[in-house]
Amino acid sequence: MRNQAAVLYAPHDIRLEERPKPVPGPHEVLVEIKAVGVCGSDVHYYEHGRIGSFLVQKPLILGHESAGTIVEVGEGVDRARIGQRVAIEPGVPCRMCRECRHGRYNLCRNVQFFGTPPVDGAFTNYVTIPADFAYPLPDKISFEEGALMEPLSVGLWACRKARLQGGDRVLITGAGPIGLVSMKVALALGATDVIVTDVFPQRLEIARTLGATRTVNVAQETLTDAKLDADVLIECSGNRSALQNGIRSLRPAGRAVVVGMGPGEETSIPLAFIQNNEIELTGIFRYANTYRDAIALVASGHVDIKSIITSYYSLEQTEQALQAAKNDPANIKPIVVPERS
Amino acid sequence: MRNQAAVLYAPHDIRLEERPKPVPGPHEVLVEIKAVGVCGSDVHYYEHGRIGSFLVQKPLILGHESAGTIVEVGEGVDRARIGQRVAIEPGVPCRMCRECRHGRYNLCRNVQFFGTPPVDGAFTNYVTIPADFAYPLPDKISFEEGALMEPLSVGLWACRKARLQGGDRVLITGAGPIGLVSMKVALALGATDVIVTDVFPQRLEIARTLGATRTVNVAQETLTDAKLDADVLIECSGNRSALQNGIRSLRPAGRAVVVGMGPGEETSIPLAFIQNNEIELTGIFRYANTYRDAIALVASGHVDIKSIITSYYSLEQTEQALQAAKNDPANIKPIVVPERS
Amino acid sequence: MRNQAAVLYAPHDIRLEERPKPVPGPHEVLVEIKAVGVCGSDVHYYEHGRIGSFLVQKPLILGHESAGTIVEVGEGVDRARIGQRVAIEPGVPCRMCRECRHGRYNLCRNVQFFGTPPVDGAFTNYVTIPADFAYPLPDKISFEEGALMEPLSVGLWACRKARLQGGDRVLITGAGPIGLVSMKVALALGATDVIVTDVFPQRLEIARTLGATRTVNVAQETLTDAKLDADVLIECSGNRSALQNGIRSLRPAGRAVVVGMGPGEETSIPLAFIQNNEIELTGIFRYANTYRDAIALVASGHVDIKSIITSYYSLEQTEQALQAAKNDPANIKPIVVPERS
Amino acid sequence: MRNQAAVLYAPHDIRLEERPKPVPGPHEVLVEIKAVGVCGSDVHYYEHGRIGSFLVQKPLILGHESAGTIVEVGEGVDRARIGQRVAIEPGVPCRMCRECRHGRYNLCRNVQFFGTPPVDGAFTNYVTIPADFAYPLPDKISFEEGALMEPLSVGLWACRKARLQGGDRVLITGAGPIGLVSMKVALALGATDVIVTDVFPQRLEIARTLGATRTVNVAQETLTDAKLDADVLIECSGNRSALQNGIRSLRPAGRAVVVGMGPGEETSIPLAFIQNNEIELTGIFRYANTYRDAIALVASGHVDIKSIITSYYSLEQTEQALQAAKNDPANIKPIVVPERS
Repeated sequence: MRNQAAVLYAPHDIRLEERPKPVPGPHEVLVEIKAVGVCGSDVHYYEHGRIGSFLVQKPLILGHESAGTIVEVGEGVDRARIGQRVAIEPGVPCRMCRECRHGRYNLCRNVQFFGTPPVDGAFTNYVTIPADFAYPLPDKISFEEGALMEPLSVGLWACRKARLQGGDRVLITGAGPIGLVSMKVALALGATDVIVTDVFPQRLEIARTLGATRTVNVAQETLTDAKLDADVLIECSGNRSALQNGIRSLRPAGRAVVVGMGPGEETSIPLAFIQNNEIELTGIFRYANTYRDAIALVASGHVDIKSIITSYYSLEQTEQALQAAKNDPANIKPIVVPERS
Repeated sequence: MRNQAAVLYAPHDIRLEERPKPVPGPHEVLVEIKAVGVCGSDVHYYEHGRIGSFLVQKPLILGHESAGTIVEVGEGVDRARIGQRVAIEPGVPCRMCRECRHGRYNLCRNVQFFGTPPVDGAFTNYVTIPADFAYPLPDKISFEEGALMEPLSVGLWACRKARLQGGDRVLITGAGPIGLVSMKVALALGATDVIVTDVFPQRLEIARTLGATRTVNVAQETLTDAKLDADVLIECSGNRSALQNGIRSLRPAGRAVVVGMGPGEETSIPLAFIQNNEIELTGIFRYANTYRDAIALVASGHVDIKSIITSYYSLEQTEQALQAAKNDPANIKPIVVPERS
Repeated sequence: MRNQAAVLYAPHDIRLEERPKPVPGPHEVLVEIKAVGVCGSDVHYYEHGRIGSFLVQKPLILGHESAGTIVEVGEGVDRARIGQRVAIEPGVPCRMCRECRHGRYNLCRNVQFFGTPPVDGAFTNYVTIPADFAYPLPDKISFEEGALMEPLSVGLWACRKARLQGGDRVLITGAGPIGLVSMKVALALGATDVIVTDVFPQRLEIARTLGATRTVNVAQETLTDAKLDADVLIECSGNRSALQNGIRSLRPAGRAVVVGMGPGEETSIPLAFIQNNEIELTGIFRYANTYRDAIALVASGHVDIKSIITSYYSLEQTEQALQAAKNDPANIKPIVVPERS
Repeated sequence: MRNQAAVLYAPHDIRLEERPKPVPGPHEVLVEIKAVGVCGSDVHYYEHGRIGSFLVQKPLILGHESAGTIVEVGEGVDRARIGQRVAIEPGVPCRMCRECRHGRYNLCRNVQFFGTPPVDGAFTNYVTIPADFAYPLPDKISFEEGALMEPLSVGLWACRKARLQGGDRVLITGAGPIGLVSMKVALALGATDVIVTDVFPQRLEIARTLGATRTVNVAQETLTDAKLDADVLIECSGNRSALQNGIRSLRPAGRAVVVGMGPGEETSIPLAFIQNNEIELTGIFRYANTYRDAIALVASGHVDIKSIITSYYSLEQTEQALQAAKNDPANIKPIVVPERS
């Protein structure tokens, strides 16, 4: 089979072209891609050609939420893995630096991450990946679900960094895909109260359908008036007043995890409140050591991840998928299926 | 209303007698008891008149899993609490020692614990308790369920001490009431694989019904043959080979929490395995700061605690309830309802 | 002996007056005060009559860093404690709320804290305190040193919240008393590199004398140019650019603890940096469970706390002590000795 | 220069022979060995030809505590490192398994560890090692000290697993080299009371000289009679009653870390005590991510590691060094210096 790819040449310029099929090196596998989720960062590169200091300087294949089937293995990999259905963890670290050696490899400064310049991603038919970054999928998990182990990892990592524990009241600001998966993970980990905020009524409706115990439309109601007294805040909107009001909604010793990327480098926060209440604030950058657990959470039924899938596209329709994610707040998670025609 | 109590005079000698209704002191409430669970330790005192160094030296009221209604309040307590339905946390610490000050008040050496000599318990109509140890029950939680916040606290504490996290494989040895509630908590906190062992087929059947992903009858199969590679062991049987084989079933860096009380002071463990795999082993003594979360887990539907209730008795039938718990392995949790007649 | 007290009537108006000697209640002790440290917050009340929402509305005795001798005990306290030399932990919590029960009693909303309106403090001859908040001092620790267990507790708590570990590089911004004690604690806990910043050369000189491995005068040099790559930041200046540049000086997964109180409720921080590097930011509000360890650190010689004492005053000179602390950046820690004349 | 090696052929049979100088592969460095410490495990292999299931089946070079100078680098390593003085971390993990990815690479089942069959060690002139396992030594640290970063890592790891914190009372059972370095690390991390036990008076004398606040000769005095109420136990003797009495000497919520290897697979422990006091027990298997911090602790003067060096030998005298370590309890740490003659 040929190796087609949807390649970003410039903002709003994606071209389908043929690329040589990659060859797996030592300890690598070759995966035939079966499903790729569209992420907000893909959309951002498509729109702007950059995210912060990451600049698309030569043609780039986007896409980092993917799953497929192993079709070839490199030296040192068990040939029995050929034919295995896998989810792909898209960021491969150097394995040698201080961060890698400490197990926080997501902070490796030499990480190679799919669809982040200059590393190509998964809107294509074939990719190679180190064997240990291709995770076996049980039969009961589809490829589309497998692709969503990536955003699910973000939600799981956010909950872990929040040290979320059973019985916690959790506030999630922003009901986009990451807010929704964080909500689902929070519920799966025993959060007994999950309040979700957004400004789009459709998204809040989806949040309620998927399990939110309460929603607040912050276009109409001020969060701090709700006197939530939450244990945990997971900020997924990138909106600064969401962050500020979210922090002020926390209990003493509450934890705030910032996931959404806001504009600019600096942000104003209620520092006196943080000090007086010993709030802990952190942010996350991707995730580490989450895939195995994310797969188990879906396979066991703890998390119904397919419920966030809203539409399907072929590889030729990659640009449409990106536009759909951008333009329709209710099109939470479009999926590109390369072999679909 | 009169205050009746089922009083243990000696092993196998329980007498129903009338006691003066207690008067709530400052910061205390008077609770009319509506439901009391029967615990294995109640049975042990009934059978042997002692547990370890705790010796029944004068007539004692047993029972420490209880819920009821506040009917009177002492000085410094909001009178609005009269009429409130509450679960009672039965161990009241000194609040001044090093353990109390550190938040691990369950290790307070001056704790006063219901139904533990010489402190009377809840097989009676009325008890007093500090107001902060009486936790409001939402309407949707019955008194019987409220009483079971106590064993649920044990299970929750065991999972916390095990640092159980979402995606973990958990081995629970012993499918008695504590094993079953630990299983339910583990599932509620995101354990994706929960293996339960016992020697009674009826108990294993109940475990499967209540959510175990796998059961092992260790009268027929050796645990270590199962090659479980578990992340967490919660030992609830008090059986020594369960502990030893359970530890050997753990992954590197696995955690073992010993809940079941075994015979004797000393026990043999596979120390070389613990060292080579950096297993962490600990035990639990009751619990601390669990009631609020236990109630939330039941109220939110994360834990279905009433499924472990197997029978009901009146206060006059307290002795029968104790015998039932002792003699029938399938009578997981008898409940005494004082006003039942 | 009479009970004299230095009472704040209004900003810049302190009057020495006689007060009735207090009587210890149940579980309390009466302490004859022998030494009191002057803290920046005492100075702030003296200057402004308020700190944030804490307003001096009636005459107030300041002073919360104190030590003395037990001269009388209340009901329930061992009479053998009479004559014992003690350091006084000045904040007494309710012991019943959620924060108290969890061991983070410094966040108790009902805490009674010395020298914070409307609670009187220690610039006086006699105070009462619960027995468990009066910590025995070994002979080798003087009363002045005993009084300094309070700021030492702040430094210890800051290091604990920072999860400081042996081998860490620690950046301390601000070389006032809290910056200096934090530095001393950091060194005692195994920090191998401690960089201290300030704008006063005299303070940086003191920091070097007391053990700083490096100092930076941030009036002359920009901190981020120093490329510190620190593991831990302890912000003790209350200055906002110190906080911002301090955060940007951290390694991936670094921890920042904000101790200094800045102006206003809101502060701008480099949030994108925090997210990309998964920095953890928190603040501290006083301390919990530190006194015993602070005393042990001084008694064992790990921390030489008396080196920060710079001057002595009598009770009559309390106002001079406050002014000295305010006006002379090199007068790090004045001590009031009530019986001095 | 030729590459000589002291090779173990069988128990008590070590032969000096010439070996080809190894060639560094990609990401590796070639190190000329300048100092090698003698460890108890070297002695055990020399005596018995095995440790547990690790069996010397073909001639083996022992030695895993080493330092030297980089004399050549493989592909991908900065040539500027040639001439650099380094300490060698002797266990190289696979970097791909679950344990490696989590940062606990010491538990990697595919680790290659110096001087552990069938991997050759450092009693030789030249070794190769991945560049990130060769740690630069500051000028002020000698090669002998550099070699001792290995046992120092064991002590540091033990203290970390014990979650030792400033102000802790620490009990160390066994005053051999590991007990002594653990003591030194404990002091450097702020332990304010360190009690050391042994049966050899000479070793207890050394312990006192090196900083123990108290020693107990357990041949003469029973440990539990001392009523230590310690926060932490670090068991370094391999003796079972040391472990049992050590555990019984802990406070509620105390932590026990087992470092010493005892006879047999199973050991009896006071489990009821562990349960009633919620003691945490674990063991350590080597260490992870300790070298950088160990070097910093020595370079900064927090740990005086050279004080445990007791004798020097040439490569030809390796067998004498092993015998000395075995026969003389006061010969704590012999060092082999290959270029010594």
